Amino acid sequence: MPAEVNGEKRLPFKGIDGFRPKGYKAAPRLATCADYPADGNKLVSGLREALKKAGLRNGMTISTHHHLRNGDALTNLLFDTIKKMGVWNLRWFPSASFPCHEHLLRYLQDGTIHHIEGSMNGPLGKYVSQGQMPGLGVLRSHGGRYRAVQDGNVHIDIAVIAAPAADAFGNANGVQGQSACGPLGFALVDAEYADRVIVVTDHLVPFPCVPWQIHGNHVDAVVKIASLGDPGKIVSGTTELTKSPDRLLIAEYVARFVEEAGIMQNGFSFQAGAGGISLAFVAYLKEQMKAKGVKARFVRGGSTKYLVQLLEEGLTDYILDGQAFDEAGVRSLRENSRHVSTSPFTSYNYHGKGNFAAMVDVVVLGATQVDVHFNANVVTHSDGYLLHGIGGWQDCLFAKCVVLAIPSFRDRIPIIVDEVATLCGPGELIDVVVTERGIAVNPRRRDLLKALAKSSLPVRTLTEIQKEVYSLCGGAPAQPRVKKNRAVAVVEWVDGTLLDTIHQVVTSPSLH
Amino acid sequence: MPAEVNGEKRLPFKGIDGFRPKGYKAAPRLATCADYPADGNKLVSGLREALKKAGLRNGMTISTHHHLRNGDALTNLLFDTIKKMGVWNLRWFPSASFPCHEHLLRYLQDGTIHHIEGSMNGPLGKYVSQGQMPGLGVLRSHGGRYRAVQDGNVHIDIAVIAAPAADAFGNANGVQGQSACGPLGFALVDAEYADRVIVVTDHLVPFPCVPWQIHGNHVDAVVKIASLGDPGKIVSGTTELTKSPDRLLIAEYVARFVEEAGIMQNGFSFQAGAGGISLAFVAYLKEQMKAKGVKARFVRGGSTKYLVQLLEEGLTDYILDGQAFDEAGVRSLRENSRHVSTSPFTSYNYHGKGNFAAMVDVVVLGATQVDVHFNANVVTHSDGYLLHGIGGWQDCLFAKCVVLAIPSFRDRIPIIVDEVATLCGPGELIDVVVTERGIAVNPRRRDLLKALAKSSLPVRTLTEIQKEVYSLCGGAPAQPRVKKNRAVAVVEWVDGTLLDTIHQVVTSPSLH
Repeated sequence: MPAEVNGEKRLPFKGIDGFRPKGYKAAPRLATCADYPADGNKLVSGLREALKKAGLRNGMTISTHHHLRNGDALTNLLFDTIKKMGVWNLRWFPSASFPCHEHLLRYLQDGTIHHIEGSMNGPLGKYVSQGQMPGLGVLRSHGGRYRAVQDGNVHIDIAVIAAPAADAFGNANGVQGQSACGPLGFALVDAEYADRVIVVTDHLVPFPCVPWQIHGNHVDAVVKIASLGDPGKIVSGTTELTKSPDRLLIAEYVARFVEEAGIMQNGFSFQAGAGGISLAFVAYLKEQMKAKGVKARFVRGGSTKYLVQLLEEGLTDYILDGQAFDEAGVRSLRENSRHVSTSPFTSYNYHGKGNFAAMVDVVVLGATQVDVHFNANVVTHSDGYLLHGIGGWQDCLFAKCVVLAIPSFRDRIPIIVDEVATLCGPGELIDVVVTERGIAVNPRRRDLLKALAKSSLPVRTLTEIQKEVYSLCGGAPAQPRVKKNRAVAVVEWVDGTLLDTIHQVVTSPSLH
Repeated sequence: MPAEVNGEKRLPFKGIDGFRPKGYKAAPRLATCADYPADGNKLVSGLREALKKAGLRNGMTISTHHHLRNGDALTNLLFDTIKKMGVWNLRWFPSASFPCHEHLLRYLQDGTIHHIEGSMNGPLGKYVSQGQMPGLGVLRSHGGRYRAVQDGNVHIDIAVIAAPAADAFGNANGVQGQSACGPLGFALVDAEYADRVIVVTDHLVPFPCVPWQIHGNHVDAVVKIASLGDPGKIVSGTTELTKSPDRLLIAEYVARFVEEAGIMQNGFSFQAGAGGISLAFVAYLKEQMKAKGVKARFVRGGSTKYLVQLLEEGLTDYILDGQAFDEAGVRSLRENSRHVSTSPFTSYNYHGKGNFAAMVDVVVLGATQVDVHFNANVVTHSDGYLLHGIGGWQDCLFAKCVVLAIPSFRDRIPIIVDEVATLCGPGELIDVVVTERGIAVNPRRRDLLKALAKSSLPVRTLTEIQKEVYSLCGGAPAQPRVKKNRAVAVVEWVDGTLLDTIHQVVTSPSLH
């Protein structure tokens, strides 16, 4: 593990609860109303003016959020503007980047952006894997990002917050306007701690912008632009279940596991993502809940129409939502007071007085790899390429029961391995691995094994499933070809210690 | 002005915008989920256990909020418990105290409480005026209290938050349960900055308590007790208009002023309190708005049934509410998404990047005295007794138009004086004084004088009205008999500088 990351000393992972922070939260700079417009109107002519007023200069840290997902046009416009202003050597601190940000590769190449700290989904991750970024990538969970800023590990000079609706004071939300995306919680820590906060909107409303998911009291300037991005890529019109028979089977197993393990009881709670398996899991679970007359107290988003149906059919009291994946999720959040916006502060921050993640009865997650000791990888593929962010994945490992729902192989490459390419989640926090070939329960969870003793579910060991898949796929997958002496990124644990290192992938020019 | 207050060096008032803060906000202590229950259940057996776990010891600062107003039983119970634990020499830091807290005089007398920093309405104020409290009282506005904690001027060791509804994680609100009071915004800064936060409720709900006006993520322990207080005194069943002909006339003048000065236009905003004149003003203004077809964008609470009627009849888009004064206000806040809870952070904090108060078109306030230069007093009576807190009064002086609506005399004592007993608001921020004998416009506001040039309203000078009242009442009021060398409390300006000193009242034993 590197002892330094981008010039800062770092501690290695000390075990799940091994590191206890000392001292105090970061202290944002004091402001005074005397320095802000008396009428509350913080509108400036454009991004350039806002950045100039914010004191943009070389070497600063610029943050953005990813609620616009793959429809985000603002971040590209932001760095185009910065480039034109002749400023460079920046640290970009997004909550995540997406394929639409491939546009920014040019700014990594020309030194406008020195390095990225934040999830890199797709092309930027691949670029980093190829060893082309000066500086190390730092991968943090959603909660880890909040914590890093709160704890003073990352100081944001300028936060640029895409706001689907805002007023001229800077109050902002994500539930109104043409670019509506749902919650804006990923930008909360940026608003609270950055020296300067710029809100950019394509839907300016008269004060007050209600609800104010972002408080204008944190905001320095407001910019109106024509469009934040492509609404069809910000949220999907509708999220769809998987049609793969194997994945449907996994979803069904997970749902049956939740019932047979005794978790599906009145007042229970669950979280599942927006992937095809997760959505199908929700659909199966819903039928089981109706059949047994069971109602959940709350379900955690990312919200989709499937969660919204649970709420609207009275099968859950609340949706506690961190992001909305489809139009139904956005609409429900806007209209239904039982669909509640959450943030990494409420849900995931490990350096708080508890968080919501630990209170969830069962969470269903994905993974790119899992090893026979239940350690899991969620950021790199078998070939070593960094292609995914951690998201809330690590934070969710504190749920009362953690299920990885994964196919046993992908593209004929086995997923259950002897050692994961990158460690993102310690096996002691992962309780169950569900594949289409069987369900493996972590031996630490004797209670679950006992509960499933008479189940008709195919309960097996991870090693058994691994062996079967190896024989199907022609043996163990090839080890990723990486330069062990050349780190390109690090994976933080939720407490800020370093869990693993990602190395440069050896590429052959003809293939890449 | 004292150079020190309770051992800390203090700056005198530097003018409205003369003091600019340097440095950083207070930094709360870091916590870790590892130290809190994994299942989020922070319930402890009682107040005593919660205080013990919080490390209660001599000399600490203990904070409470005043949303339960004169129905608050918790604060008395709190100090009864502390007394039994043998802890003393505490600084009590309430957002305000009420006549129901007369019970606490015994703890000022026996040293359990060393001194109070916070609004003192009634008996505690009188006690302070008599010079009986060791240590100086410090009077801050609602915004000033937020600022003082945020800026690190006051460090809260233990915050005790009365919560009409809460879950075992500590999420809490004021809109549900038998003790429902409306918003909980006065406790926000306590939750954010105190070392230890104890939530006390008489209505425990399963997680999640929605809405969470207080985030459980700030909370250390939750205590369930039988009753927080007397619901009939927490909110009034209904707030009532004044029946005094003089006061009704004042209210009518104010409403006519708002229209004739051109303020009452589509999209305008106003704030008025819960006093009889304010309520009558709202009733008059409502009729004018209906007659002219004018709709407000927002009105500021303290909410009452009169504001709720505006909202429900479509005469305002929003109520932005800091506290609810009657049942109609609480119900509306609970049920209507256009009735929005605010806090001293959003509304009043002067050391922020702007606040809501400055965006209000017209605010109607009271005062105990005003001088011929428009300087005003809101805390002491003509006899020098400290009997009221500042509330949001100072913070509201930043509104675009500030109206003091006051009778020209009370109990045959003239209200317009040559010099106020205590300066709470500089005259340059006060635009209009409305009495039953005429309306005086601050000569600085030539725009308003011009707008009223052809008005039939009785526009006069303050000196003219003063002269008339002096002749009616038999001359100028007696100066308060105070010991000028014996300070008992100080009045802070919104920026933390000292605006004035309150002195011990000379009492004759037979009278007091």
